[in-house]
This record gives sequence, C-alpha cells and structure tokens, in this order.
Amino acid sequence: MTGAERFLAGCRREDVDATPVWFMRQSGGSLPGYRKLRERHDVMHIARTPELSAEVTLEAADRLGTDGAVLFADVMLAAQAMGVELELAPTGPVIARPIRSATDVLGLRTIDAEADLGFVAEAIRLTRAGIGPRAAVIGIAGGPFTVAAYLIEGGPSRDQLVAKRLMFGSPQVWFALVDRIADATVEYVRSQVSAGAQAVQLFDSWAGSLAPLDYDTFVAPWARRILKAIRAAGVPAIHFAASGAALLERLAKDADVVGVDAGQSLRTARERLPACAVQGNLDPARLAGGPRAVTAGVERVLEEAGNAVGHVFNTGHAVPRDTDPGILAGIVDLVHERTTRAPTELATVNGPAPVRRR
Amino acid sequence: MTGAERFLAGCRREDVDATPVWFMRQSGGSLPGYRKLRERHDVMHIARTPELSAEVTLEAADRLGTDGAVLFADVMLAAQAMGVELELAPTGPVIARPIRSATDVLGLRTIDAEADLGFVAEAIRLTRAGIGPRAAVIGIAGGPFTVAAYLIEGGPSRDQLVAKRLMFGSPQVWFALVDRIADATVEYVRSQVSAGAQAVQLFDSWAGSLAPLDYDTFVAPWARRILKAIRAAGVPAIHFAASGAALLERLAKDADVVGVDAGQSLRTARERLPACAVQGNLDPARLAGGPRAVTAGVERVLEEAGNAVGHVFNTGHAVPRDTDPGILAGIVDLVHERTTRAPTELATVNGPAPVRRR
Repeated sequence: MTGAERFLAGCRREDVDATPVWFMRQSGGSLPGYRKLRERHDVMHIARTPELSAEVTLEAADRLGTDGAVLFADVMLAAQAMGVELELAPTGPVIARPIRSATDVLGLRTIDAEADLGFVAEAIRLTRAGIGPRAAVIGIAGGPFTVAAYLIEGGPSRDQLVAKRLMFGSPQVWFALVDRIADATVEYVRSQVSAGAQAVQLFDSWAGSLAPLDYDTFVAPWARRILKAIRAAGVPAIHFAASGAALLERLAKDADVVGVDAGQSLRTARERLPACAVQGNLDPARLAGGPRAVTAGVERVLEEAGNAVGHVFNTGHAVPRDTDPGILAGIVDLVHERTTRAPTELATVNGPAPVRRR
Repeated sequence: MTGAERFLAGCRREDVDATPVWFMRQSGGSLPGYRKLRERHDVMHIARTPELSAEVTLEAADRLGTDGAVLFADVMLAAQAMGVELELAPTGPVIARPIRSATDVLGLRTIDAEADLGFVAEAIRLTRAGIGPRAAVIGIAGGPFTVAAYLIEGGPSRDQLVAKRLMFGSPQVWFALVDRIADATVEYVRSQVSAGAQAVQLFDSWAGSLAPLDYDTFVAPWARRILKAIRAAGVPAIHFAASGAALLERLAKDADVVGVDAGQSLRTARERLPACAVQGNLDPARLAGGPRAVTAGVERVLEEAGNAVGHVFNTGHAVPRDTDPGILAGIVDLVHERTTRAPTELATVNGPAPVRRR
C-alpha cells in the first residue's frame, strides 16, 4: 500500500499492511529547511505563502516518512479571513480586538474561501502534487470552542475563563459567534477538500474543559455541522480535543476518527468507540526522554490499540518544536515494522482479525 | 447537624441533613478583610503568619456559610520547608533554582514539621478555635506530581513538558524526588491533623496530564502513601486532580472523597465510584455568568449527584479570585435549601435513600 492508501484505510477502518503514522505539528519545528526559512520569515508569512507552506509540509512528510502530510497552517486562519486582526506570538495567536459583544460578532465578515483563503487551497494543491501517493494530505481547521475562546480571550489562556463566562452569561452572543465560526469553517474545509486535502482534522483543542452537557449545548451542534461538511466533501473527518476523556463518544459523532490525547488509555478509548477509528496517543514528553522511553511508549500505544482495524498512530498532543526529527523518523519505522501484516492476512477481508507480525 | 458534622458525614458517606458545601480557594479572593490584608502583605506572608492565615480562613467560612473552612495556604509550603526558595507570582509559584538532577534532589532537606511548618499547625489551631462546630477545618497539601512538576519546571506551565521529560528520561531522579516529596508531605499532613484539621485535601492538580499507566508508575505509590497517612491520622482524605476523568478509579484508591473537575459528568463519576464520596463540580466560569447560569449550574450538579449518600458540593476548579462573595454565599444557601432532608428521613438509616425535598 502507498502511504496515502494506508492512512485512508486506517481512517476508514479497513485493513492495512501496517499501521499508518503521522504527528500533530510534524511540519516545522526542528527540520533544517524549516529552520532556515524561519530565519527570514515569521510563521504567519510561511502559513500564508503557498510555496513555503507546501515546502515545509513536504519536507516533514518526506524526512519523517509519515503516511500523512499535515498542512503547515494555523487554526486561526479562518478567523483571520473573517476580519480578525491577529499576531502569532510564541505561545499562540494574540487578537488585537477581542470579541466580547453582539456588535463585535456582527463585525465579523462572511468569508469567501476562494478569495480569502485561496493561499491554503494553493498550498494543498502544491503539497498534493509534490507528495504524490507517498502520503495523504491532511487539512486542518480550528474547532468552534477553541476558535471562539481565542477570539474572546484575545489569546491563549490556561482556563478559558473569560470565554466561558461570556458563554454562560451571554449565551446569545456565544451562539451567534460559534454560528459565524461554523459557517466560515464549513466554507474553509470545503475549499481544502476541493483543492485536494484527503482528510481534515478539526482541532477543538480546548473543548475538554467543558462539562459534557455544556459541550452538547454550546459546541456540539456547530462541531457536527463542520464534521458533516468534511464528510459530505468525501473525505474522512478527524476530531481532536485535548483532555477529551469525558467527551469521547460526543467527539465521535459525525467523525471518522477521534484523536485521543495522551492523558487517556487508548485501550479504554477503543472500547468506548467500537465503531470509530482512533488516533493517538504517544505522550510527546517521551520524545525527549531517550530511546527507551520512546520505544516503551510506542509499544504501549500499539498494545493498547490492539489488532482491530481503525488505528492511526500519532502523538497525543502536538509535537514540541524542539523535537529531534530523527526520533520521529525512527518512530515511523518502528510502528510500520511492528505492525506489518503479511499479504495473505490482508487478503482475508472477512476472516479473523489480522495478527501483528512480531 | 453542625456544619462540621454535615461535612464529615458527607465525606464518610453517611446520612446528612443537607448536602455539605465548600469551595476550592474560597479563602482570600474578593473578601473585604482579605483585600485589606493584601494591601499590606503578600500572599506568602499571610500564609506563613498563623493569625493572618486563620483570620482569612475564618472570614471566608463565616461570610459564605460553608460547611468546610479550607486553610488559606499554598500547595508549595512543604517544598519550601524542604529548602526550596520560591516566590508566589500571580500565576503561581516561581522556583529560584529548579530541580533537574540527582544532586539537586539530594540537596533537599528532610523536614521537621513542627520546626519548619509549625505556623501551619498554629493557623489550624486558631481556625479550629475560631470556627467551633460551624465548619470543619480542611487542611491541604500538594500532590506528588504537581509539586515535583513545579520544582522541575521552575514555575507554572501549560503542559509540564520539562517535568515529564525528566520523568520519562531519568526515572531514577524522578523516583528519588517524589519519594522526598512524599516523605515531607506525610509529615506535613500528620502535623495538620494533630493540630486539628478534620480532613485533608491532596491537590494533585496537574496529574490529569499523565496517561493512566504512567500515573500508576510515576505517581500513584507516593500519592497513596500520603492518602494513607491522612486516613491513619483519623480524618477523611480528599484527592483532586484537574482533567482527571481518565484517572477517577485511581484517584479513589486510599481516598474517602474524590474531587471531580468541571470537565466531567458528576453522574458518570458517581457510577464509576460507587464506594467513594465525590466532591464537585460546578464550573467556576458560571460564577460570573449571572444568576441564571449559577442556578442552572447548581441544579445540574445536584441532579447529577443524585440522592445517594456521599456528595460534597464544591466547584470543579478553584474559585477565580475576582468572584463576588455574595454569589458564593447564595450558592451555599441554595444547595442547603434544595437538599434539606427531614429528620424522619435521616432516622431511616437502613431504609430507602433519602428523598430530596423540593
């Protein structure tokens, strides 16, 4: 199987010749080409320049040998297209004028994905052409809670207290805001798929701070609208929230793959989501813990994932920017090697579950 | 029942005349006496001066009418007694010389609770004398992961990456460090109970970022040693971790009460912990969301808690410092009113579960 086939089969819970692998935030970080580019350009410039974004995305997938090539982009690009002025500080996006009122929400523009975010589509086209079948091109978008929380807080925050206060205290403003965000994000993910994205991951990184019933009221309808748009465009929808253990079944609605963070048991996640693929969940802190910590972590993920179809190997959170690319490349090889299935096993489509060759 | 009786019965899963209430970080914040003290003293000075710490603790319990009076103290006091130089910045403790090596660990002192932390014991004695039976005095201590992570990181962090890298990469240094922390914390909690603390909460706020199997290896043995010491001293042990949904059963081992954060369903937590009391889990963001958000939040917590014994009402995370004390006092009244049980119901010890009067 090609990398792209392997990744897509993993997402669709079909048989694979080995477990597909990619890493959240694999593009960028410590790769030599990226570091060189960063000497001359800021992150937003790279993300908004198709040739540079594609170059960085391709460098990562080719150097690391991953089955997915996740686009170098920022979760706030759609918000930027809505007219929000933002800067990317080292800790995350900083918003010049946070959204705090109905008037602020009304000031947000309806996006025209082609005109406003055409550079992302072009980056995807270039990446797709460059990577060929070696890896699937994965688009990304920010989830409704995370994008709304950034817009209200004005930047990263530990507990999203300002955003949640507005959500609980002025629900009509909140609903109007997530509605605008969802509209824009639907256009955005459609344009990504039209341009050639073979899957899209919705990063609702902060949604795990919500009580499940509040998630149902304040986030789920808009998240599901976006996930449905991804699937309607014909590609798998991947849904991720950090600290998402209490939300797993909710995240799985209208998603093909649920990203499982490192603070959970992947085994438990598999049991709770029997009809959905799972992605994860190596603790990124292990990447700098030396070879034994890495190997033990990879082995545990594979053991907890088990032999059933529908596991995509990934880290449980974004890869730290100072990670040695050699470690990541080694993990790709290790996962592929440990999970290789013989052709005869693959052929037994309706037979017993494929057995992992050790 | 007195407030102290109500709180202790709640912790011990005995019948109560109403659900007991307290709030994490209820002491301090926006109370007038505390604000006045803060004009002249920093937080650490108040925490280390028995008369001031007791004054602030008493002010909160009396003004708010809570059934628990949680000591105004910092989770890093025991570490400070081990010789660690630290300052309390607005975002949390900042360590002058972070612990990063075996030599650093060896440099930590063995504590003498009486000599090094006698001011905490004295604050507890004063609080106990001042509050009488109106509320139970609750001691606090930092959990092994959280204290170790602070010491290694050198301050607050979003993902504890530096600490976890050391944990995975140099496990022997980690084990030596948490062993020292546990030794000191055992002495510390014993001295708190000797002085009159009627329960102790172990705050392992950050432990939820660990995979359950890593929690078992790197934290659980030391947490359980501390919890056992609290119980052996004769009072209930309360165990709290934020984002703890994947760890609930683990947190319940050797604990009487598990603190449930706001990102979980309290109903699910009750189902998973049939033999343990639960505490929580109002989302603190609701406190500034207006009366409807508060009332709806309280009602949901009470409904999810159900009528079975063993629920202590609390927020799911620490109360924000700018919270209006009137809101908190109103919640105490509301919870007591909504959960009042008639004396005849209380008398039916082995009969059907008490029915809440609406």
